[in-house]
Amino acid sequence: MTNTSLDDPLPSWTEGKAKRKIIEFVEQVTDESSPHFVAKELRIATFDNDGTLWVEKPLLAQLAFYKWQLFDSGEFDHSEKAAHFFAKLKRLIGDFFDLLRFIGAYIFSGLTTEEYRLAVSKWIKHAHHPRYQQKYTDLTYLPMREVLEYFSQNGFSNYIVSGGTANFIRPWSEDVYKISADRIIGSSTRTRLKIKDGTFSIKIEPIPFSFEYCSGKVLGIERRLAKRPIAAFGNSLGDADMLRWTRTTAHSLCVLIHHTDDVREYKYSPDPFYHLGKSTLSYAAEGNWQVVDMKNDWQQIFAFENESVKDK
Amino acid sequence: MTNTSLDDPLPSWTEGKAKRKIIEFVEQVTDESSPHFVAKELRIATFDNDGTLWVEKPLLAQLAFYKWQLFDSGEFDHSEKAAHFFAKLKRLIGDFFDLLRFIGAYIFSGLTTEEYRLAVSKWIKHAHHPRYQQKYTDLTYLPMREVLEYFSQNGFSNYIVSGGTANFIRPWSEDVYKISADRIIGSSTRTRLKIKDGTFSIKIEPIPFSFEYCSGKVLGIERRLAKRPIAAFGNSLGDADMLRWTRTTAHSLCVLIHHTDDVREYKYSPDPFYHLGKSTLSYAAEGNWQVVDMKNDWQQIFAFENESVKDK
Repeated sequence: MTNTSLDDPLPSWTEGKAKRKIIEFVEQVTDESSPHFVAKELRIATFDNDGTLWVEKPLLAQLAFYKWQLFDSGEFDHSEKAAHFFAKLKRLIGDFFDLLRFIGAYIFSGLTTEEYRLAVSKWIKHAHHPRYQQKYTDLTYLPMREVLEYFSQNGFSNYIVSGGTANFIRPWSEDVYKISADRIIGSSTRTRLKIKDGTFSIKIEPIPFSFEYCSGKVLGIERRLAKRPIAAFGNSLGDADMLRWTRTTAHSLCVLIHHTDDVREYKYSPDPFYHLGKSTLSYAAEGNWQVVDMKNDWQQIFAFENESVKDK
Repeated sequence: MTNTSLDDPLPSWTEGKAKRKIIEFVEQVTDESSPHFVAKELRIATFDNDGTLWVEKPLLAQLAFYKWQLFDSGEFDHSEKAAHFFAKLKRLIGDFFDLLRFIGAYIFSGLTTEEYRLAVSKWIKHAHHPRYQQKYTDLTYLPMREVLEYFSQNGFSNYIVSGGTANFIRPWSEDVYKISADRIIGSSTRTRLKIKDGTFSIKIEPIPFSFEYCSGKVLGIERRLAKRPIAAFGNSLGDADMLRWTRTTAHSLCVLIHHTDDVREYKYSPDPFYHLGKSTLSYAAEGNWQVVDMKNDWQQIFAFENESVKDK
């Protein structure tokens, strides 16, 4: 998949502190003679998805998917329901996450989880990013795919912990990240079991169940694994609690991907526009996280520029 | 752990249809030349815990634990709070599961999940079953431990799916069943992240979050794995939906443990006392589940009679 060679596990990273720190950490926790050695079953690494493993600008992929499902899939009834929808949309526009949940619930209530995952599969195979004109899965960050592979080669269990819904990521995570469906911890709505004529279907209910964002990331991981990660990667304030929590383990690696490259990608703050309290970068400074400067630390940003990925 | 030899993976099972069916199923799904072959990553097996993997009479172990925590641990304040508790207890006594949730929430609200798991660890090390005077973990069923081992040797992923809380099982499941904490799907209450002076703690809230019972078992599995099991084991109506759902896969093994031995264990119906609709055994007949007659199909019932377990 990536250019990973035996000599250099992270070839698309510039030589420097960030790369060195990741490699040093992996070497320490896997070396039985090191005081920082960590048993395999405790080598838990958690990764935010949007903005950490793939591009999230100008629009979150999940929102692009909803937009398509709503307006372009031809499967959606635009009538009375739509009028009510747009009225509500106006009121919600100020709160991005309510908006996300609302659109999701509106579109997918009535669908089964399997139908939802199928719709995602269908979309992700053809959808192109408006700027790069590439598939979203090819807009995953090559340096991060190298980290995933390097970690898993070293006995780590990689988990994605996303504010997006788990079922939006599962249809393609195994292919793209080599992370299986059961290792996606993500937001979810309630579901309901419907049994009809011997057919079992699991219907999506338009009621939020869990929201893996800020403290919800910590609670989601703890609920599922009853363990703390020893490594965590994020890019925004929504990941700060997860990274701070990870920092409370004896020896940890906390990495903040900082979007600093307005030429090759986007340049923006880790803090959302509605941010009021402490900034993500001040958490990073306090906790001595490794901040990755995308512009300088990554020689290549996207997977799509990589021939071997194209050929796949 | 068990007597499993290369020749006979299930030595404590009587030769007969039940044993044959389990072995036949494993051989079919692991044989690449069989039409029933199933890829490793889809070999999901789910097991109820109480009454399926260990004894649940005369009192669910989790309730025995709460009783101890409440009256015998010396860590509990019996005062005003208790008066209110017993008043409410009286009203709830008719509904067993509300009762369970209520007691759990009452005792453990204020505790962190880590403290809860520590309390369980402490209890399970010393607690003895009133009839057998053995540790609860030695009152796991040897034939089922053989099944767990046999399955995992054949590339299955074993999951416990329990109406009890996941955190009641996690502290000992790795030792006893070789099932790690992240493979326990169980009921849970809400949790809350508390950050104080740089310390992160996850507090148990007295609010039910998920209830893995009846349809809740199906929803819990689907939410976590986004996959259907190909094998499922249960012993009561609370497991019926899980077994019926498993039955909808192309080739499945559904097993109902029937408690028929009033000499060595207990004899009771798979249906709870408040049961009104279809009976578990009629579901079993309809779905052609394998019903295990504990009295005749199991040569030995408990792990504790097994020397190698005692020596452990």
